[in-house]
Amino acid sequence: MPTISGATWPDIPERFTPAKMDFGTRKIMNLDSLYSELTIKTGAKLALLVMDGLGDIAANGSDSCTPLEAAKTPNLDALTQTSAQGRMIPVAPGITPGSGPGHLALFGYDPLEFQVGRGVIEALGLGVELKAGDVCARANFATLNPKGIVTDRRAGRIATEVCEKLCAKLSAKVKKIGDVQVIIKPGKEHRFVVVFRGKGLEGPLTDADPNREGLPIPTVSPRDPKSAAQKKTAKLIADFYKEALPILAKEKPANGFLMRGIAHQPEIPTFEERYQLKPACLAVYPMYKGLAQLVGMDKIEGPQNIREQFERYVAEYDNYDFFFIHYKYTDKYGEDGNFEAKKKAIEEFDAALPILLEKKPDVLAITGDHYTPCAMKGHSWHPQPVLLTSAYSGSDKLERFTETGANMGSLGVFEAKFLMRQMQANAKMFDKFGA
Amino acid sequence: MPTISGATWPDIPERFTPAKMDFGTRKIMNLDSLYSELTIKTGAKLALLVMDGLGDIAANGSDSCTPLEAAKTPNLDALTQTSAQGRMIPVAPGITPGSGPGHLALFGYDPLEFQVGRGVIEALGLGVELKAGDVCARANFATLNPKGIVTDRRAGRIATEVCEKLCAKLSAKVKKIGDVQVIIKPGKEHRFVVVFRGKGLEGPLTDADPNREGLPIPTVSPRDPKSAAQKKTAKLIADFYKEALPILAKEKPANGFLMRGIAHQPEIPTFEERYQLKPACLAVYPMYKGLAQLVGMDKIEGPQNIREQFERYVAEYDNYDFFFIHYKYTDKYGEDGNFEAKKKAIEEFDAALPILLEKKPDVLAITGDHYTPCAMKGHSWHPQPVLLTSAYSGSDKLERFTETGANMGSLGVFEAKFLMRQMQANAKMFDKFGA
Repeated sequence: MPTISGATWPDIPERFTPAKMDFGTRKIMNLDSLYSELTIKTGAKLALLVMDGLGDIAANGSDSCTPLEAAKTPNLDALTQTSAQGRMIPVAPGITPGSGPGHLALFGYDPLEFQVGRGVIEALGLGVELKAGDVCARANFATLNPKGIVTDRRAGRIATEVCEKLCAKLSAKVKKIGDVQVIIKPGKEHRFVVVFRGKGLEGPLTDADPNREGLPIPTVSPRDPKSAAQKKTAKLIADFYKEALPILAKEKPANGFLMRGIAHQPEIPTFEERYQLKPACLAVYPMYKGLAQLVGMDKIEGPQNIREQFERYVAEYDNYDFFFIHYKYTDKYGEDGNFEAKKKAIEEFDAALPILLEKKPDVLAITGDHYTPCAMKGHSWHPQPVLLTSAYSGSDKLERFTETGANMGSLGVFEAKFLMRQMQANAKMFDKFGA
Repeated sequence: MPTISGATWPDIPERFTPAKMDFGTRKIMNLDSLYSELTIKTGAKLALLVMDGLGDIAANGSDSCTPLEAAKTPNLDALTQTSAQGRMIPVAPGITPGSGPGHLALFGYDPLEFQVGRGVIEALGLGVELKAGDVCARANFATLNPKGIVTDRRAGRIATEVCEKLCAKLSAKVKKIGDVQVIIKPGKEHRFVVVFRGKGLEGPLTDADPNREGLPIPTVSPRDPKSAAQKKTAKLIADFYKEALPILAKEKPANGFLMRGIAHQPEIPTFEERYQLKPACLAVYPMYKGLAQLVGMDKIEGPQNIREQFERYVAEYDNYDFFFIHYKYTDKYGEDGNFEAKKKAIEEFDAALPILLEKKPDVLAITGDHYTPCAMKGHSWHPQPVLLTSAYSGSDKLERFTETGANMGSLGVFEAKFLMRQMQANAKMFDKFGA
């Protein structure tokens, strides 16, 4: 600190002599390793109930409301009396997540650190049992003219049965490329996925899709030009095209196909090793079972609706420490822009809730993976409301669980990836940090 | 942008070909250096009032309340009219801090960057005046059988007077190991601390404690096998055992001792150099005096209760720029699970507040270092409420300072380590950043 001729400091504002501005790298503690070090097994039961796309906006001013506000939810209301509320940022401010990042964040994995390619998500959605390192691509049948120009990117939206037949034909003739196994699985209409299983494969690659008609199918190339594994995989895709296109040559209108979102399933630490909780997934749609499987959750098969899911939760209560229960319809009707149906889906969920509460878990979180506002007919970036209840959550003394209620909750606004840590804390699974 | 076969790209919405995802190292600005650069001395007076373990949960639903809500606090209520409120995350979501990290965060030091070992905290708690580099260990007397096996880790919880006698005996005979000074200080019952003061010592080391009966005392070793200073310190501990154990050989039942949390007091930049504020600590309990001393605060000795602390604050007003005033009883009664006593402790604090307000500081913050919910009888992770008042805090127009009030405050939810920066800002101690 400068001294001025031994004088005392003036009472005018004086700038402190700055240290050199430090823009250098800093050692930053890996929070996951801290959490891991503090983790204690307590035998507590935790349940995460995801109402997909739950959040919504009051789109018509202050007299309008959201489906959650409009719905009659006596059971959620009762639960609110002993709960904390807050809002969760799915990925980062303004970022709208797909189902993959949305759920990875709910499972406590930073969705920016653990990125899962679109092909992987599609394959999971079609129920393919993936292994780490599998390279997956979304594909669809297309129509090519004799010069190889794409004239219809969806081959006239062929019927699902036609797609299934064509996939079976390709599967029968292209089982392997070199020593790489090829798995082809049909989806709806013109859509299918291709999975390549072998050693040393890696994504992401550029798309084999011109993204509009009037152009040929582009050759794929590595996103990272320095990656030998990506080069090898790009070559594999080219070889696959060489073998597969002639098989379709005489088909009409589906004499070609496009591939997008080509990426491999990344290595992800399992849920159980991360949290010391044995997890189970109770989902109806394959996509969510697949996402749960990505982090190593057991898939419990059978239940076809939310009542059956909750009943099964009760039946399996002793077999697991953690239950992920997924409810699709809030998202589905949000995507349709159907306010009434979304409201009713919430009411149906609420009506089934007492089944779960017969065996109330020690820690219960109810939330969405993202907003699906009816007015937007799609996912959005808005931080989703979350309700958390345990013996230690305290009560925020809110009357209901709603978007506006969540604004006043004690949990504040936090990143969705921390919900699991909040749940673990409420299960008393963390030792004290420091003395 | 790539061209394919000479064709131009379409003008339909098209996903920009992403750059390779960059997970490489980034230069991250050290915020402390920015704050330092912007700091201006203004001569403002700042006071931080810590009601230890203040926060609490409404554990019995929405009709229940917290001690802070239940307490009659006319003076806090009046202060609230001109204050901002918010909540502070002590360390990270879900992490429960001990007193060390809790207070370091309040003093503006990232508790993950500045970690203080258990031995250091214990030594501070017993009033040892530590110097940077001192290696401290929590110790307790234990019973060994003739083969050196630990048969009672607490030596039958010997009386405090016995502990004091044994410590005096050890102190008298082991003043130095080589050129390293040894300081032994008794605690309650079987507990004591050992401080090693010399050059080139470093922790942390593994424990000289089998953590259960039926095993011998393990030899300590470096936590970082590459550290020569830790190796040297491990050798020192072994030498200390060689000298000290024979002195106790004929004692019953305390013929041995265990050592844990062996670590050195880290180098911590002083509070004054960090904030350009001359700080004083007004605490009653040694632990908090010690934590203040860690960052170089002056300890003002004498006051034994909150009225006396506030009176002394008034008397010392001209001598310091910053006052840390610590109030223990909110935490103490929270630990006891005694709701009524915690409520009364808050009322006692409130009743004394006008003494301080006679010389109202320019910036006043009132908060806790963490929650100590009565229902949990211990610290917890919940973000603690904070009240901040200055000529520039604005008013959040809340009726009272409570946990639920804090949910609606303009400060939002933020990391506790930023409270000091908020206080400095309210003292107009920061120049504008950028033009």
